[in-house]
Amino acid sequence: MLKKIAVMTSGGDAPGMNATVRAVVRYAVSKGVEVYGIMRGYIGLIENDFVQLKFSDVGGIMERGGTILRTARCEEFKVDRGRKEAYKVLKDRQIDGLVVIGGDGSLTGATLIANESDVKVVGIPASIDNDIHGTDMCIGVDTCLNTVVENIQKLKDTASSHERAFIVETMGRNCGYIALVSGITTGAEAIVIPEVKVDFQALADKLLAGKKRGKINSIVVVAEGAASAYTVARHLENRTGYETRVSILGHIQRGGSPSAFDRLLACRLGSGAAEALLSGQNNVMMGLQSDGIVPVDLNKALQTKKEIDLELYKLANILS
Amino acid sequence: MLKKIAVMTSGGDAPGMNATVRAVVRYAVSKGVEVYGIMRGYIGLIENDFVQLKFSDVGGIMERGGTILRTARCEEFKVDRGRKEAYKVLKDRQIDGLVVIGGDGSLTGATLIANESDVKVVGIPASIDNDIHGTDMCIGVDTCLNTVVENIQKLKDTASSHERAFIVETMGRNCGYIALVSGITTGAEAIVIPEVKVDFQALADKLLAGKKRGKINSIVVVAEGAASAYTVARHLENRTGYETRVSILGHIQRGGSPSAFDRLLACRLGSGAAEALLSGQNNVMMGLQSDGIVPVDLNKALQTKKEIDLELYKLANILS
Amino acid sequence: MLKKIAVMTSGGDAPGMNATVRAVVRYAVSKGVEVYGIMRGYIGLIENDFVQLKFSDVGGIMERGGTILRTARCEEFKVDRGRKEAYKVLKDRQIDGLVVIGGDGSLTGATLIANESDVKVVGIPASIDNDIHGTDMCIGVDTCLNTVVENIQKLKDTASSHERAFIVETMGRNCGYIALVSGITTGAEAIVIPEVKVDFQALADKLLAGKKRGKINSIVVVAEGAASAYTVARHLENRTGYETRVSILGHIQRGGSPSAFDRLLACRLGSGAAEALLSGQNNVMMGLQSDGIVPVDLNKALQTKKEIDLELYKLANILS
Amino acid sequence: MLKKIAVMTSGGDAPGMNATVRAVVRYAVSKGVEVYGIMRGYIGLIENDFVQLKFSDVGGIMERGGTILRTARCEEFKVDRGRKEAYKVLKDRQIDGLVVIGGDGSLTGATLIANESDVKVVGIPASIDNDIHGTDMCIGVDTCLNTVVENIQKLKDTASSHERAFIVETMGRNCGYIALVSGITTGAEAIVIPEVKVDFQALADKLLAGKKRGKINSIVVVAEGAASAYTVARHLENRTGYETRVSILGHIQRGGSPSAFDRLLACRLGSGAAEALLSGQNNVMMGLQSDGIVPVDLNKALQTKKEIDLELYKLANILS
Repeated sequence: MLKKIAVMTSGGDAPGMNATVRAVVRYAVSKGVEVYGIMRGYIGLIENDFVQLKFSDVGGIMERGGTILRTARCEEFKVDRGRKEAYKVLKDRQIDGLVVIGGDGSLTGATLIANESDVKVVGIPASIDNDIHGTDMCIGVDTCLNTVVENIQKLKDTASSHERAFIVETMGRNCGYIALVSGITTGAEAIVIPEVKVDFQALADKLLAGKKRGKINSIVVVAEGAASAYTVARHLENRTGYETRVSILGHIQRGGSPSAFDRLLACRLGSGAAEALLSGQNNVMMGLQSDGIVPVDLNKALQTKKEIDLELYKLANILS
Repeated sequence: MLKKIAVMTSGGDAPGMNATVRAVVRYAVSKGVEVYGIMRGYIGLIENDFVQLKFSDVGGIMERGGTILRTARCEEFKVDRGRKEAYKVLKDRQIDGLVVIGGDGSLTGATLIANESDVKVVGIPASIDNDIHGTDMCIGVDTCLNTVVENIQKLKDTASSHERAFIVETMGRNCGYIALVSGITTGAEAIVIPEVKVDFQALADKLLAGKKRGKINSIVVVAEGAASAYTVARHLENRTGYETRVSILGHIQRGGSPSAFDRLLACRLGSGAAEALLSGQNNVMMGLQSDGIVPVDLNKALQTKKEIDLELYKLANILS
Repeated sequence: MLKKIAVMTSGGDAPGMNATVRAVVRYAVSKGVEVYGIMRGYIGLIENDFVQLKFSDVGGIMERGGTILRTARCEEFKVDRGRKEAYKVLKDRQIDGLVVIGGDGSLTGATLIANESDVKVVGIPASIDNDIHGTDMCIGVDTCLNTVVENIQKLKDTASSHERAFIVETMGRNCGYIALVSGITTGAEAIVIPEVKVDFQALADKLLAGKKRGKINSIVVVAEGAASAYTVARHLENRTGYETRVSILGHIQRGGSPSAFDRLLACRLGSGAAEALLSGQNNVMMGLQSDGIVPVDLNKALQTKKEIDLELYKLANILS
Repeated sequence: MLKKIAVMTSGGDAPGMNATVRAVVRYAVSKGVEVYGIMRGYIGLIENDFVQLKFSDVGGIMERGGTILRTARCEEFKVDRGRKEAYKVLKDRQIDGLVVIGGDGSLTGATLIANESDVKVVGIPASIDNDIHGTDMCIGVDTCLNTVVENIQKLKDTASSHERAFIVETMGRNCGYIALVSGITTGAEAIVIPEVKVDFQALADKLLAGKKRGKINSIVVVAEGAASAYTVARHLENRTGYETRVSILGHIQRGGSPSAFDRLLACRLGSGAAEALLSGQNNVMMGLQSDGIVPVDLNKALQTKKEIDLELYKLANILS
């Protein structure tokens, strides 16, 4: 039975990270385990920047965006020397188990610790990109989608008033999930994602057909990993003669109080991760599958590409 | 192959009904089918109150709460005579298929039509109570949860300022889902739901323990089907001596622009229902199961009680 | 020149109180003055429950609803004995000046201190009711109005879907401001406020005329001080035969992160109060008048009834 | 007495334009006047694109962002020939009065019509920049501020998590009002506006001082008319060594359902404009001054620069 565990958030922040930390801490503490928060992800681990987290230390954080443990990207941990320092810190502090909350880069670090040290490690997928295999949803995605949808609705107001096309760029470096779902759910005329080769002529034709049908606004949602919104705008202006405007939603997509969905997911994955650690699991990631919380082999999760549902892409075309 | 179908919304309204109507209409129209909207549910069916819905007639409705087809509860359809009039209307209009969007009462009507007439019927579960078997989530639940969570957060502000306990009553006549999930995701001290017998003394002890630990606000979430918030308040005041306040959230839980989740679910269930009808399905309900949209036997869905996940109830107690 | 001042929030909480505390503290600290927060209003004053507030102690509170100083209603301060204890505390602590943030009851206490002790006192009007003479707006009113308007919009969704009339009860014991403004800005059919005698027959006629004109929803906004929403509902059902529903918005009207308007008002009134104290003012309240922040004689402010603009009431009737 | 009036929205759209149109139409119709909406501002005027607006035609639009009359910028109206065509249209249609809703460019057009034709003209200031003399607030400003504040709060979440500085660019070509007020109300470390020469070294020093004091996020708000956010970011990175990120809020600032404040202002200015026209006023703009709605000489309003309150700029520095 583990006695001391640690928890960190790492990589890009996502709404719901605080709710996850709260669940890890409170579940573990309720089982008699001591819990430490590691500040700023792997950097704080190497630099031995730990703080004990008791039950009441995580009160009132569930509703807050960002992460009280802060987060960072860390180059040092990618080299042996940095990791050795980290393992020494964990050993000196007699940490038996570690929960890593973050995206694929952060979880790659987690599996290295599981493989190279005696510390047991459980990962929790938190990434607004929803690009991690082994879980239906990552923490932060739902809140991000609501932010994107709400803002595209605002753009539609002004698009309709001016009879313009708006090209909206969302986050998503390798994965078009945010663009795809926000495009469907705002009735966007077209969606440009890394998973589907873009055909600018077809896209232009669609906009022209919409206008002919009487539409007074057009929205094109572009994942940042597929193309620059400015490039898409230029192509469309050239082919249609429309007046277009570009909106890069940027970092507002990462912030905000988490939605009910993300809070619930955070409570379930966070407590599930603590429970998994305490029951001896190692080198796994907790995932949401079919409404159940399950441990997924961490190596497998990292080596498999999460496929986007292309039926949704077709559906977007039918419905808009 | 069907040529003319109709769609209605019925029973209590839920956010996302309009997005569902839009998806049914646009999917079917794109396959060459004529679609009619029936006004005010079964009443409009009996009274022959139909309106043709073309592709552009459902533009701009996805983001709107409520239902443009309006809705009502209907006693006449529960008796043979009313239903016979309804079947005559459907026959006279040569309607081959019908999509019914609503809760269990509305879907019970749907299965009667499937059993008693030649019209093929597909149901779509829309109910903020999330009380329908055969689907992980009903349309409207996610938006409702966000509304409840947002408002409980507001109550926590004032509860903390005055060091009071708030007893919040949510919707949920037979099913504690809204109360349970909103309670977990707002860190409520206690949750009172129809599925679990309430122990007022244990509840009072929990509030007292929280206060001892330094908590300056207490939230108790009560499903309307379990108890009146006023009753709970009286019990707790008597046992703890706390100053309590009651908040009945009421009908604001039904309104509002649907969340991204509800819009996506509506797009998928709506187009899935149209597709199911066109491919010859009958007497089924489209459900979300494990991230897939599947047809579920409608009789079975109606005869099976949807069980709440009691693990969530335990989790709520551990985390708060 | 004052050296030590204290600040308290008292009475019903209002969004923006924290932003006000922050402004008082930071302005005074920047001028070299020591600032103490008094917990729970006049109770904390009598019980000597003070906490020093430095510049960074009020970081991150501007956006939070409620008040970190907490608040309460206090009977003890209404009797001489209680006030004597309070003055002793202030004297022992060598407090030269006091800022009281609250509604008319709290400001009445403030003027007593100014009259009965050597401590200089400046009040700041914070009350969602907007019932204080001498200021165009009180802190919290704008946020409250946005909450009410947003929720009435949700009720309109469901009202339209069911073709019902909703009777919405807002806060406002002696003053119909919230009901009046939220009624105008949501297009309510009728508004019932303490300042205008209600004519149920005229109101019923208006609803009937609206229905005749094709309106499918009706909203009646009632200030709690004018009538119970249930009473209004009964009168209207009897006279019109409509199906009505009641929604009591309750305490959600007090919570939530303050709007931009309330934050700006809080920054201006809070810094203005600190500046007024430091420049020797006493027994005044800071008010917003014509876009300027001015000191108002506190006794006069309390003795004059704030009149509601009845032109707005007429306008509501013309526009709906 | 006028018999037929027209109303248009022109220039950049602002939230509350629809509420204003509704108020103009309903007030005038209630006085027996016929009202026409002109589509797309001055273009629709020249092209004779009018639509009659009856009382019920403007139902349900108050809560919608954008403008149902659409809007555009128009070069043709700047030359005599274009204006002559416009005057002919107005004469042929026997329009006696015109309400123009828009910013300074649009109001400049309005005064030309008043000077060069027999049509009486009243303007209404609607511009998120709040850059029009003669009114305390323009329609759309309050909603825009809430959008900006809400989004800066989201950026603060991620700024704190990553310990970064965010440079946020708001709208405001000639006027720093949005940047100034959103900066104060989000506790921004620094505000860069056209009205005040920027001192990058002082700004860098302030950020460094904040960090020294323990601040883990820094927000700098920049009005687009003062500097590019990228330029500011580069200057600050060079001088402080901080990691910065840029967020261009862009067109989302124009959209969204109007706030309670903007709706009320729209109701008052819209009905006030109609009333002014009917009572024979001409070549004026309705303004909000000290809580009253007053006619302002339109030429004077256009020729006077609206000064920003530099006390607010100083206050921002004291409080952050």
